[in-house]
Amino acid sequence: MKTINIILLGYGRVGKAFVRLIQEKQDFCLSRFNLHIRLGVVLNSRGGLILVPDKEGMGTLSDLAQGLKLEELPYWRPAMDFGKARECQDLDVLVDCTPSNIQDGEPALGYTHQALDRGWHVVTANKGPLVVDISGIRKKAEKNRVSLGMSGATAAALPTLDVALHSLSGAEIYKIEGILNGTTNYILTRMSKGMEYSVALREAQDKGIAEPNPSQDVEGWDTAAKILIITNVIFGTAYTLKDIQVEGITHIPSELREEARAAGNALKLFGRFVQNGKLPLLETKLSLIDPSHPLFGVDGTQKGIAFFTDTMDSVTVTGGKSDPRGAAAALLKDIINIYRG
Amino acid sequence: MKTINIILLGYGRVGKAFVRLIQEKQDFCLSRFNLHIRLGVVLNSRGGLILVPDKEGMGTLSDLAQGLKLEELPYWRPAMDFGKARECQDLDVLVDCTPSNIQDGEPALGYTHQALDRGWHVVTANKGPLVVDISGIRKKAEKNRVSLGMSGATAAALPTLDVALHSLSGAEIYKIEGILNGTTNYILTRMSKGMEYSVALREAQDKGIAEPNPSQDVEGWDTAAKILIITNVIFGTAYTLKDIQVEGITHIPSELREEARAAGNALKLFGRFVQNGKLPLLETKLSLIDPSHPLFGVDGTQKGIAFFTDTMDSVTVTGGKSDPRGAAAALLKDIINIYRG
Repeated sequence: MKTINIILLGYGRVGKAFVRLIQEKQDFCLSRFNLHIRLGVVLNSRGGLILVPDKEGMGTLSDLAQGLKLEELPYWRPAMDFGKARECQDLDVLVDCTPSNIQDGEPALGYTHQALDRGWHVVTANKGPLVVDISGIRKKAEKNRVSLGMSGATAAALPTLDVALHSLSGAEIYKIEGILNGTTNYILTRMSKGMEYSVALREAQDKGIAEPNPSQDVEGWDTAAKILIITNVIFGTAYTLKDIQVEGITHIPSELREEARAAGNALKLFGRFVQNGKLPLLETKLSLIDPSHPLFGVDGTQKGIAFFTDTMDSVTVTGGKSDPRGAAAALLKDIINIYRG
Repeated sequence: MKTINIILLGYGRVGKAFVRLIQEKQDFCLSRFNLHIRLGVVLNSRGGLILVPDKEGMGTLSDLAQGLKLEELPYWRPAMDFGKARECQDLDVLVDCTPSNIQDGEPALGYTHQALDRGWHVVTANKGPLVVDISGIRKKAEKNRVSLGMSGATAAALPTLDVALHSLSGAEIYKIEGILNGTTNYILTRMSKGMEYSVALREAQDKGIAEPNPSQDVEGWDTAAKILIITNVIFGTAYTLKDIQVEGITHIPSELREEARAAGNALKLFGRFVQNGKLPLLETKLSLIDPSHPLFGVDGTQKGIAFFTDTMDSVTVTGGKSDPRGAAAALLKDIINIYRG
């Protein structure tokens, strides 16, 4: 049995779902993978908990999994921060559930580098550091012989990088098209039934699908960040947000919607990479697709990605839960895959 | 650079496509994975070639890739067989492209065991040994610390096992539904447009999609073999063909076709596993699906598989080339994934 001690950064919706999930999956991870996944440290912006190596750790995990707030627990330390956590022995994996800042990646980018320097693996749901400095992060991980788990930041429970890097080994990918954002796809699906944008957005907000401030999603930046990371990881490139043309769903001409409906086509927000000689095209773009497209029928909060290859034709993945539990499952997957070897 | 010497068993359509593919992908495998994939031995039922360690090996690969017959090459040895090949040094991976015999697995089953005993990895497009003795083969591979690549026998270029074992790590799969046979799916797609079974079958045969003797496909046995292998590998079980209810597409009641067409549904041949308490259901069954099913729209020779999980909802993969080149690409993928670690 291998014991893995996690340092969890961020205790919002995804962080909480992750704690509940590792509690729920303790026995399964042990019996199936011989892995004992423990919570070692939990940090939010106000302080943190250390659960390693005291034996109460497991009890605390249960308390957390049952929904208690960090501050209510006996081990709560307001003075705890990332610097102090770095001094802890026995930690193995940083799980980053802090909010994505795709402008400069901070503060997560600094924590990521420090974690890699500390010899910790990094498993992240945070797109920021990967958008801003994917090359530096990958180089440092390789140099320090630790792993990066990026599923949580690249459409989460929908496998994207996994499939490209593992299931398509040996094939060369010349185009990628993805519906990578559940919120915009939900709104577009409702609009395809005749609903106006503002009404569909409000409905999505009422259902907890869209954020109170939805701009990252509806203006296309979340999709842009994901296709950027996916492209850079697959091809070892270092494109930035400046290299990608970004379009959102906030100003769709009514003629375009009418055209789609009349022809039985669907209007989707695609993150797209096209290998185009030496000048690849990267874009987030509203795209009209007909029923023969492999992503036709990917509706509501569902996501999907299609890889077009030289030897295997297109391989398309769809589905994967678009909620905090799905994101937590993607983080757990990456942890397991690091250790099963 | 790591050099990998292949022993290729079987030189039919898939074997030939594999030889062309490793010739075509030499530079790519070297630059991307630092792997030099060479052909060491090629065997068919009449004899074989040894290409290791003589330097002409590469020339011979080119000759083969250009379509020359084995018997026409200067290194052809009519007396060559698997027993003699086992005495060769420096071979690393057995690639099995011999026809599937799902009754007793032979002769490939014997070769598989001998290869594993010899310390070779085994990468196979042959369902027979995996249907008949998956437990014995896996145990032996584990004991001898060699790997099994089974993509070529489990829907080939459509990733199935990869996704279940890697992309869904930590999730528990309670149901699998797959369109796993391109021939039957092609025929069913044509029948959905009003064509009679016998006409659609003949068209598929004329196009080289269906075999002259199509019974393995149209009676459901190919699908049964695939869902059986996929299930046994994922769950570590040892079900046999006797445990699976098998239905084909040769006698579809016209009312059922009419019902599907009238309701806008599709009739598909599913390989299906359902975790049903302690008595799992395994079947190959004609299934009516509506447009909300994730495999709706998987038409023609396309394949697809949907995994239903506890934490990630359903994850569906579709596409992947259904021809010898796609099968060869799946074999190459498995080889690369063994060595990239």
